[in-house]
Amino acid sequence: MSTETGQFILRPSDIDALVYGASFLGSGGGGDPYIGRLILKQEMEAKPALQVIDPSAVPDDANIIGIGAVGAPSVLIERLPNIDSFMYALERVERHSGRKIDAIVPIEAGGLNATLPLAVALRSGLPVIDADGMGRAFPETQMMTFSIHGYVAAPLYLVDDYGDCAIIETKDNAKTDRWIRPLIDAMGGAAMAAAYPLSGAMLKAAAVRNTISTQLDIGRTVYAAKRKKRNPVKALIRHFRDHRDQPRFAAKLFTGKVFDPDIRIDGAFNIGEIRIADMRNPDDVCRIAVKNENLIARRRGRVLAVVPDIITVVDADDAEPITTENLKFGQRVNVIALAAPDVLRTPNALAVLGPRAFKLKYDYTPLEELHGSK
Amino acid sequence: MSTETGQFILRPSDIDALVYGASFLGSGGGGDPYIGRLILKQEMEAKPALQVIDPSAVPDDANIIGIGAVGAPSVLIERLPNIDSFMYALERVERHSGRKIDAIVPIEAGGLNATLPLAVALRSGLPVIDADGMGRAFPETQMMTFSIHGYVAAPLYLVDDYGDCAIIETKDNAKTDRWIRPLIDAMGGAAMAAAYPLSGAMLKAAAVRNTISTQLDIGRTVYAAKRKKRNPVKALIRHFRDHRDQPRFAAKLFTGKVFDPDIRIDGAFNIGEIRIADMRNPDDVCRIAVKNENLIARRRGRVLAVVPDIITVVDADDAEPITTENLKFGQRVNVIALAAPDVLRTPNALAVLGPRAFKLKYDYTPLEELHGSK
Repeated sequence: MSTETGQFILRPSDIDALVYGASFLGSGGGGDPYIGRLILKQEMEAKPALQVIDPSAVPDDANIIGIGAVGAPSVLIERLPNIDSFMYALERVERHSGRKIDAIVPIEAGGLNATLPLAVALRSGLPVIDADGMGRAFPETQMMTFSIHGYVAAPLYLVDDYGDCAIIETKDNAKTDRWIRPLIDAMGGAAMAAAYPLSGAMLKAAAVRNTISTQLDIGRTVYAAKRKKRNPVKALIRHFRDHRDQPRFAAKLFTGKVFDPDIRIDGAFNIGEIRIADMRNPDDVCRIAVKNENLIARRRGRVLAVVPDIITVVDADDAEPITTENLKFGQRVNVIALAAPDVLRTPNALAVLGPRAFKLKYDYTPLEELHGSK
Repeated sequence: MSTETGQFILRPSDIDALVYGASFLGSGGGGDPYIGRLILKQEMEAKPALQVIDPSAVPDDANIIGIGAVGAPSVLIERLPNIDSFMYALERVERHSGRKIDAIVPIEAGGLNATLPLAVALRSGLPVIDADGMGRAFPETQMMTFSIHGYVAAPLYLVDDYGDCAIIETKDNAKTDRWIRPLIDAMGGAAMAAAYPLSGAMLKAAAVRNTISTQLDIGRTVYAAKRKKRNPVKALIRHFRDHRDQPRFAAKLFTGKVFDPDIRIDGAFNIGEIRIADMRNPDDVCRIAVKNENLIARRRGRVLAVVPDIITVVDADDAEPITTENLKFGQRVNVIALAAPDVLRTPNALAVLGPRAFKLKYDYTPLEELHGSK
């Protein structure tokens, strides 16, 4: 990887590390990463090199479009995401705008939606930008740095498996989200989306940076620790805290056994609560509230971490992240938290994607404060 | 009116007759005609002449778009239809297709949706075509002669009061309808629509003809009878039966008093049943099933008339048609039926808009057969 030239090439040997990192940043959501791995591997068999561009190397007048799947993650396991549908969306974006697209940016950094835009970039021959609009995964269209910067998602294209399409053109991203939820339901519970047409200048102002390189770093750190028979969770926490350019607080919140995960599909969302009990003391329980993503982790009434900070459940044995819809009774897990990128912690950002935006009766407190470290 | 030249001018003095006819053809649906009258009068104050073109005078390569409001009629009483929203829709149709629109065609012949396209034509300076896609009112997007001829509604534009827009591009009109229902709900229960882009040749092949002139004929016949102190219902039935060019069977089905009209809003439709009792014998009841429009009229188990034939409830005193959402306990009414245009009675048409399409357990029987006349 060369940050000097502002770009690097992603290769098939990078996929496992990338998918691990994407899954970790998914905060329990963003869709099943293993499906994303399959799809990306398939596309890389045809084209084994993907150009990843740093935002700093993108011309101000470049024509960029955001790419991702929308709907309940549970549905995206049943109905495999369709790269053809994204191609229909790109074709329509170009036809309606009368301009060629220059590059693709992932709408979010987590789970399936971290890999799908890369597969779309490979298929279309476009480069992908090392950035995204969330720095993690979030459940709603307006919960993006692009939106927080005042950019509209519209025209937002939703395409189904048959190439049939709905286009939403509103001036208000929260309205767009209200319109698309019942529509996605009528479309079968999920759709492939293209949204947030951005110039290069807009991208540079609003995007969360280093998304793909951070995913790769996370995966490589964990796999290197495993190869050296070291504790991957400890290695990961140290990696974040001691990062040379962008140190971020991280902590292990809890270790225990999943019991009674109560996640249901409600209005194109996965909604519910995860409960994890201490192995020796079953009364010591960590509860995590979920809306597609993990929102808040509590233990005996005390808040351990809260959105937009990232809460991820990983398998206690192999440290693989587990998305909420894949949690099963009896799994032994670690709960890990990672400080959100600074752009998600501003007052403007917290108004849109902080705990109150999810109707939680709790003010945002940074992870490092909750754990007595600054 | 000159049918020789293939066009005529609609003037403010025509509005009352036109609205009466539109209301009659609404078959209880199509939205409140009095709101349509208000809106049309307002537009005609600015431009007191509207060019109405016969399909035969439309060039084959003309660029035509269908116009109408969609949603539950009840909502369109609360939230006045917005001509500005239609103008946004026209602007988008022209921008996305890259072609100027040459003329407007009403999507349906009944109620509010008969007058709104005329108001849009006045505002936009476009002519309106003496035709429509239903010959009456129907509740669903695919229940149109345009659809029965294999033409797609897409791209279908839905615009709200703020100029925000959803565009549906499917190859399947029933799918389009499934997608727009929950969407219209999220848009506040109603939206202004532009759909069915047609060439002049397509229009000539598929449209129900003489829509506006038939509306005028109906209204003029009733008002002339009233002026001469004759029975307007009898005059109307005679007018249809004895029509020189296009005789159509018509009959009075029942006279009585409305009791317990049970109409609710359900999934952007008005759904329910109207019950009308004989004044002297309250056990003698006419029941009319409703989905936005009146679908089937029964008396003591015997079917009196069934969709697509037109069933309209009119006030017993002044013969004014009453839309389903305006029916009130105690109203004295006549129930009148009119044979649907022949294009709605073909096997292809009945499969889409006959009784079975409304899940009624009854095969279509023409009105004239039900009443022993051929």
